[in-house]
Amino acid sequence: MCQLMGMSCNNRAATTFSFTGFSARGGRTSDHVDGWGIAFYDGYGCRVFQDDQPASDSPLAEYVRNHPIKSRVVVAHVRKATQGDVQAANCHPFQREWLGRTWVFAHNGDLGRFEAPLTCQDMPVGTTDSERAFCTLMSRVRQHFKNRHQPPEWSELAPVLADIVGDLARHGNLNMLLSDGHALYVHCSTHLHQVTRHHPFPKARLVDCDMSLDLGPLNAEGDVMTLLATEPLTIDEPWQTLRTGEFRVYVDGQEVWRHFNPQTQAFAAAERMAL
Amino acid sequence: MCQLMGMSCNNRAATTFSFTGFSARGGRTSDHVDGWGIAFYDGYGCRVFQDDQPASDSPLAEYVRNHPIKSRVVVAHVRKATQGDVQAANCHPFQREWLGRTWVFAHNGDLGRFEAPLTCQDMPVGTTDSERAFCTLMSRVRQHFKNRHQPPEWSELAPVLADIVGDLARHGNLNMLLSDGHALYVHCSTHLHQVTRHHPFPKARLVDCDMSLDLGPLNAEGDVMTLLATEPLTIDEPWQTLRTGEFRVYVDGQEVWRHFNPQTQAFAAAERMAL
Repeated sequence: MCQLMGMSCNNRAATTFSFTGFSARGGRTSDHVDGWGIAFYDGYGCRVFQDDQPASDSPLAEYVRNHPIKSRVVVAHVRKATQGDVQAANCHPFQREWLGRTWVFAHNGDLGRFEAPLTCQDMPVGTTDSERAFCTLMSRVRQHFKNRHQPPEWSELAPVLADIVGDLARHGNLNMLLSDGHALYVHCSTHLHQVTRHHPFPKARLVDCDMSLDLGPLNAEGDVMTLLATEPLTIDEPWQTLRTGEFRVYVDGQEVWRHFNPQTQAFAAAERMAL
Repeated sequence: MCQLMGMSCNNRAATTFSFTGFSARGGRTSDHVDGWGIAFYDGYGCRVFQDDQPASDSPLAEYVRNHPIKSRVVVAHVRKATQGDVQAANCHPFQREWLGRTWVFAHNGDLGRFEAPLTCQDMPVGTTDSERAFCTLMSRVRQHFKNRHQPPEWSELAPVLADIVGDLARHGNLNMLLSDGHALYVHCSTHLHQVTRHHPFPKARLVDCDMSLDLGPLNAEGDVMTLLATEPLTIDEPWQTLRTGEFRVYVDGQEVWRHFNPQTQAFAAAERMAL
């Protein structure tokens, strides 16, 4: 299993505080030592930092903790390998371009021997079930909107993605974060939490480090930010637990769409559907 | 105009010395201040570092200079914007996945108002002629090999790429580096140099910095490495100048294929074909 962190905001914001707590799970407060990655969107441009070293020791993670990169959407992952060996090609988030947008995807869970159909236009570079699921998802989206020259709006995409994600989640646990730099699409099979911050901003204390931050002076009155994480990153904030089968969409820091699939189930570690 | 640096090696090698000289061109010894990027292949996994700050000042470039990342193929770029504003989406190298390989592309030159055909499957995220050329190239390659499920060998790809690159170079200057992590494909319209290093390895002195390095102790007897750069990076090494219209392929540090297109021309800065 791995851990996820995501952020959606209506203004460009740094996530150094949150990433400090999150990256501690890559070796210090948790045993997710098989690599990590973080994607920052700057407009539709996307910069991905990845390393196959534990996030708590990695000099590149140290760089990311110490150099604020302002962004409106962030997708991050610390890896504990269940499938695929420890190598750069298996580090999340994965990325693909579709209709002039860079899509990134990070996954927590285990989809067993799930294989992408041979007809997929997107093919995995590495050897993880996660990248195979992402390739399947992107290929189905391409197919659904195959005559478009412009990317569809999130409102048109959301129900299509909810269907695809529902299908993928029949193979095993699919906790995921997906973005094109504008909307952040999330799905919960077993573990995902969210908190939305707005004025008045609290003083937040990290779960994983002895560190507090008064978020008030760092934010303007109109700022709205939603953070997502496998497990809450801070103490004293009202983190919500997503339900099994919930699919949500966030734009500019706020939830804009939600779907619940009652057929989605949470799989025990070794139990998966043979489909 | 921009500057390019590429490396192909038969063993994983660090390029910190070369990148130290090269990145000085991003603001200190040359005015390529509009961003930079470098792609390192680890097997078929590809890590890209990019920044829209000048390479000579960028803390991330400092990180890359100080933390050796061993790789068999490297593609790097410092940017002086001629088209497209200064933003992350316009930083080279660009990347796309095709048949389970990550392809990266970096370009020096100016292709004018060149537009990718609307039928392209790959679409640009940013606003540069370079990314439009890369999208066209990848879409033509996809089309040529459209029924494949496995990537073709370099020997099958090389003549196809040479044709496509010859077509693109009719629109303006196309000095480029392209790789899938195995082969490094290069084309020269105006400026590209190469040097191949093997035993006995020389002591090399950088052109752009007061820095020398004895390459002998860093390399084993069987190591072979080819470096490519817009302008030679070192003094005292036998850099070769590529001709206008030359397309070469390097695998494991050695040239394996070459094509010369006598119709390719070098364009003056403001002169381009209206095609």
